[in-house]
Amino acid sequence: MKKLKRSGRLVDMTYFLLQHPHEIISLTHFAARYQSAKSSISEDLVIVKEIFEDEGYGSLLTIPGASGGVKYIPKVGKEEASELVDSIIEQLAVSDRILPGGYLYMMDVLGSPRFNKMVGRLFSGALADKQIDAVLTVATKGIPLAYAVADYLNVPVSIIRRDHRVTEGSMVSINYVSGSSKRIQTMTLARRSIEPGSRVFIVDDFMKAGGTIRGMIDLLAEFEADLVGIGVLVESVEVEEKLVDEYISITRISEINVQEKKLKVEAGNVLDKL
Amino acid sequence: MKKLKRSGRLVDMTYFLLQHPHEIISLTHFAARYQSAKSSISEDLVIVKEIFEDEGYGSLLTIPGASGGVKYIPKVGKEEASELVDSIIEQLAVSDRILPGGYLYMMDVLGSPRFNKMVGRLFSGALADKQIDAVLTVATKGIPLAYAVADYLNVPVSIIRRDHRVTEGSMVSINYVSGSSKRIQTMTLARRSIEPGSRVFIVDDFMKAGGTIRGMIDLLAEFEADLVGIGVLVESVEVEEKLVDEYISITRISEINVQEKKLKVEAGNVLDKL
Repeated sequence: MKKLKRSGRLVDMTYFLLQHPHEIISLTHFAARYQSAKSSISEDLVIVKEIFEDEGYGSLLTIPGASGGVKYIPKVGKEEASELVDSIIEQLAVSDRILPGGYLYMMDVLGSPRFNKMVGRLFSGALADKQIDAVLTVATKGIPLAYAVADYLNVPVSIIRRDHRVTEGSMVSINYVSGSSKRIQTMTLARRSIEPGSRVFIVDDFMKAGGTIRGMIDLLAEFEADLVGIGVLVESVEVEEKLVDEYISITRISEINVQEKKLKVEAGNVLDKL
Repeated sequence: MKKLKRSGRLVDMTYFLLQHPHEIISLTHFAARYQSAKSSISEDLVIVKEIFEDEGYGSLLTIPGASGGVKYIPKVGKEEASELVDSIIEQLAVSDRILPGGYLYMMDVLGSPRFNKMVGRLFSGALADKQIDAVLTVATKGIPLAYAVADYLNVPVSIIRRDHRVTEGSMVSINYVSGSSKRIQTMTLARRSIEPGSRVFIVDDFMKAGGTIRGMIDLLAEFEADLVGIGVLVESVEVEEKLVDEYISITRISEINVQEKKLKVEAGNVLDKL
């Protein structure tokens, strides 16, 4: 890379930090990349840090010492978080989403990378101070949300499947009872996809009674991994007894009436977790 | 937002443009955001453009006129593309990926947001000049790749499923013949997930004879949508007769021997498409 002035360095540095969240980048790396003194790099980083923190893009941690550097931790400010939740609610609270059984058609929003990033930012903001090694979800609709979170956290995703495909090697399966339909179902996860002792965040799109998530927690135990948290995009409040206690929800359905096509969506508890 | 100096504007602008690829951002937007004259904003954008283009991050198109502005189009330079492909090959060419039947275990790499972004950048670079309205994939392993591409292209993803889930409303199904196993299988896509006339890019992780992709093309026809291109992460060359002619491949398996656990992976044709 050719020698850059401050203005050029700031553009390149911002680009680079955004591509490498939750990763320590040494001052030496930047100094070599821009052929500049570390003191200049430090001054650049002060400018980046100020914008990132003022605008709620995240924080820029300075790690002192010989192996020191900076780490970009994506976050979301209270005010922006509240705007994100409002925008998500607005997109979800459309009565023609209602499907038989009180489910919601969500593939339009879940198909939008922009929408998923909003959810990913909220979850990763709520998890900014936790150490997380992997995100776990269940096929199919949890997948885009899981990747959006994992991208901000810079960790891998593991996907539980409800079928057993030949192309993933040895699998671990468990049976679980779907909380709302009370049917026995199976979920499987490739043996090599989660390491023992991993600290795992579970993500899913929808939680009714929480049976599927309960199953995911049980499956995690088979891998001797630790649960750090649970995040759902939508929780339904119709159900009296939830099988899961602690979770982060972005939104909550406060009213759904299949016959009258009425749907009310409100904020979940995520804003309390930031 | 408070009034910013050039240095602050450059950081914020870079952040903003990266969050809004393939979208026209008016100079007025930036001028209002930073309380600065449009002439200053134009000068800022020249600096951003120079870095983005020199470093191969993409191009910054200037749209003249009253409704004008700038559009960030993610691209990848030849040299970086070649490094990305090499890195992908290195991660794939590990003999203990080999599964019975000549399939490859790929959930480790497909679980990594960083890996998927590399693939997404390559595909979106090859598609930079095409108009695309949606990315189509098939559950489960194509999904993370599809979102990575769609994110750079700023378009939605549609996911074909092999089962029929109650939670997606009315579905369109077709039968297709898997090219390698010759078995008849079913794929379904929610009726409301692709609009007629959409220009669609198909993404999948693995192509052997191309039967699955052939099926996806046939399904697309049911939606009266147009195929713009096909992208696969890995193509297998063992098969004599491919059911699909035109596609972009990132890598190609040139040799696989299940008994001897031998695997050779080389570059696909993507570098010729950039």
